[in-house]
Amino acid sequence: MNVTAKILACVALLPCLPALAGSAADSPPTGRDTPSAAQILSESKPWEWRRPDPENLLVMHLPKGRIVMELDPDYAPLHVANIRTLVRERYFDGLAIVRVQDDFVVQWDDPEADDGGDPHKIRPLGSAKATLPPEFTRPIARSLPWVRLADGDVYAPEVGFSQDFPAARSPASDETWLVHCYGTLAISRDNAPDSGNGSGLYVVIGESPRRLDRNLTVVGRVVEGMDQLSALPRGHGPLGFYVHPSERTPILEIRVAADLPSSQRPHIEILRTRSPTFQRMLRAARDRHDAFYVTPPGKVDICAVPVPVRDSSLLHD
Amino acid sequence: MNVTAKILACVALLPCLPALAGSAADSPPTGRDTPSAAQILSESKPWEWRRPDPENLLVMHLPKGRIVMELDPDYAPLHVANIRTLVRERYFDGLAIVRVQDDFVVQWDDPEADDGGDPHKIRPLGSAKATLPPEFTRPIARSLPWVRLADGDVYAPEVGFSQDFPAARSPASDETWLVHCYGTLAISRDNAPDSGNGSGLYVVIGESPRRLDRNLTVVGRVVEGMDQLSALPRGHGPLGFYVHPSERTPILEIRVAADLPSSQRPHIEILRTRSPTFQRMLRAARDRHDAFYVTPPGKVDICAVPVPVRDSSLLHD
Repeated sequence: MNVTAKILACVALLPCLPALAGSAADSPPTGRDTPSAAQILSESKPWEWRRPDPENLLVMHLPKGRIVMELDPDYAPLHVANIRTLVRERYFDGLAIVRVQDDFVVQWDDPEADDGGDPHKIRPLGSAKATLPPEFTRPIARSLPWVRLADGDVYAPEVGFSQDFPAARSPASDETWLVHCYGTLAISRDNAPDSGNGSGLYVVIGESPRRLDRNLTVVGRVVEGMDQLSALPRGHGPLGFYVHPSERTPILEIRVAADLPSSQRPHIEILRTRSPTFQRMLRAARDRHDAFYVTPPGKVDICAVPVPVRDSSLLHD
Repeated sequence: MNVTAKILACVALLPCLPALAGSAADSPPTGRDTPSAAQILSESKPWEWRRPDPENLLVMHLPKGRIVMELDPDYAPLHVANIRTLVRERYFDGLAIVRVQDDFVVQWDDPEADDGGDPHKIRPLGSAKATLPPEFTRPIARSLPWVRLADGDVYAPEVGFSQDFPAARSPASDETWLVHCYGTLAISRDNAPDSGNGSGLYVVIGESPRRLDRNLTVVGRVVEGMDQLSALPRGHGPLGFYVHPSERTPILEIRVAADLPSSQRPHIEILRTRSPTFQRMLRAARDRHDAFYVTPPGKVDICAVPVPVRDSSLLHD
């Protein structure tokens, strides 16, 4: 069986920066080289991948293509439920990406609710709640899996993966939270901590803004389409908001994957972070020895190895 | 005197994610709030800013605008000299951005020298050298300023700023190096460590790829125009190379600022990292208390506070 797959979100570990022709051919890998991420993934077993619950997948259509996000209801049950309500009542359809701040976030919401909008035209939230208790952290629970990353962290006492999302925890305060890495999906809010309700969302498109951890409610991450979001033109108003409405990217629709006919559902699979293959990827990132790397980094940051995603509809026997 | 300035590269600390209208007005800052980055910068003194040596500024013109980069010859003297030679012999004019790999790098070089190019059409390097000893690290020297960041780091024993570039050092091995943050400018190479010569360069556009530290020669950073580079369409060939030549962004020209008439030189100023204002920004990032932040991050990562840049031609008395 020869399994190949289009790997959607694990590019960060691919071989590095060969600039000149013929390099790979000139220096064939030896048996002692650290395998590349692609090599490691090609040797993964089917049981190491999981298919997200379609209730937890959001599918957003922009004019140029599809964005898929995985939600984590165990970390933000109230916000995830409110987002599902908004999506199911078609709240987002016809709204827009209103803000792209370089090295920070892409954000979408109702432009009429932002500064400069027309308060009379604000779209009603329907049966969704307007305020929610913040879900910035949650208590550590034994029922939640924890795959510790022992490499240390600047911001948190402990980091690791929980349900295959990058996360942190503080045993001293009995708190755990999802962290802000590239691709993290979270809820924008006003100053009041309970003012986020899911009608405004943002995705990280730059350096991990870890200062936001424990200050905003993280609900998940983008698992397909980051390359579209990150390449959107930057906004040049304050905070990266677009100055002219014509600059905004319209949202054609957002759906919960469970509500789509099966032919239209994404066939996404996520590599389990407790799997031998993911652990092997972490070791390869940490202790890389090959024809290119002179000095292995020795460590790996919690945001440095995006959890791999593949499209199982592209798998061939 | 009322000094205002367009701040080009310090957006990462600006107030966070207000989603709804009127938030600022609803919650006026109190005297005890941590000042915003913009507030802190507005109170800076002229002597806290430095004007880079025009010999160390590269000005690249793309069809949509200008990119300015500052080189650091103390960390990579041989590579910086070779780049200046290439630029002065017009090596880059008419070449192209050939690669945009999402969450990683933008790269430019001679497409004919890459895989799939025509070796007969490779542009000659002129009087520039084809190979150079790697300048991945250098010995720690007392003559080089060091502004330590005491917050810790996952990858290096010590981090801080050297000549206002983010840097790391290892006293045990007597090595120091510039680190890979968002906006870092470095030299692509083949597998051989001496194969980089400056004819191919890359800029970081995603999560800091710190694994590259000490494996590639960092020569500086982008100080204007990151928002253009980071928004370029991603390449969909292997490693983010563009599949079709028509997708590439042409480089109209690159010049050393010292070679430009003064009217065309960038009026860039960089905030000195040892200045009270920059240190105040770090403290504000670390211990942020205001109407928005519930839990101050307590720490700041070496890549989390981009060193501010301003355009002094936009300063008004």
